[in-house]
Amino acid sequence: MKFKLILSFLLFTTCFTAFSQGKQAVNSLRNDISVTEKGLIKISIMYPYAGGKTFNMEYYETKHMPMVAGFLGSNLVKYTIEKGLSSGIPNQPLSFMAIGTFYVKSLSEYQAAIAPNRDAIRADFVNYTNVAPVILVSEVVK
Amino acid sequence: MKFKLILSFLLFTTCFTAFSQGKQAVNSLRNDISVTEKGLIKISIMYPYAGGKTFNMEYYETKHMPMVAGFLGSNLVKYTIEKGLSSGIPNQPLSFMAIGTFYVKSLSEYQAAIAPNRDAIRADFVNYTNVAPVILVSEVVK
Repeated sequence: MKFKLILSFLLFTTCFTAFSQGKQAVNSLRNDISVTEKGLIKISIMYPYAGGKTFNMEYYETKHMPMVAGFLGSNLVKYTIEKGLSSGIPNQPLSFMAIGTFYVKSLSEYQAAIAPNRDAIRADFVNYTNVAPVILVSEVVK
Repeated sequence: MKFKLILSFLLFTTCFTAFSQGKQAVNSLRNDISVTEKGLIKISIMYPYAGGKTFNMEYYETKHMPMVAGFLGSNLVKYTIEKGLSSGIPNQPLSFMAIGTFYVKSLSEYQAAIAPNRDAIRADFVNYTNVAPVILVSEVVK
């Protein structure tokens, strides 16, 4: 009888612990989502649109961006790729054909990781575009 | 004896259900994070940098962006604000002082929500900047 009581107690506490750990995991994940981006540094590589300029999104997505991301290690939080659609204003041309963005914790670490690989990165440009990108380093405010 | 067996069984199944529901919640949240942005439409309002141009980030963050976001309803998935820091390249000027971005599910719904409020939005520009923004509508590829 006493043994069964102890067994029930153990089962109950295990159950309770597992349940509250699950809740903690959900809450910590929720926090991650809301605080992930604020304060991070974004390096946006923006490819301007102009007549005669081309951009191969498939190569950019499957080859170029994964290569650069591979240089950045744990400093890289995430990277995104977007495809320019329009200026949103009638008769006004598209500003950028594509933008690739690295979200990093430290700009100096990013620069240190890119420096020894700059030639390899630039040499790859001709494989997907004939336009020189505009770069913007920014800080996520919200 | 039989009663206790049933009770233990009930306790066990309750425990198991709670635990697996917790795991499901974590997994569904993980999916939300990874698929949240892909396929969404971004409307980026980009404020170019130039000599003599000003931008009041505090007003933009606490007044202007919340006002516009309020027009968008459930079509708005999230909005972000970033502050331009540098061009990342020595001796090359900053491209944009600030960028505000709305992530929406539908561009046509966005346009329909903005149209009746366009005058109010434009009239607010003078409260935080003296530069005309460049707008980019893009699709999140990754």
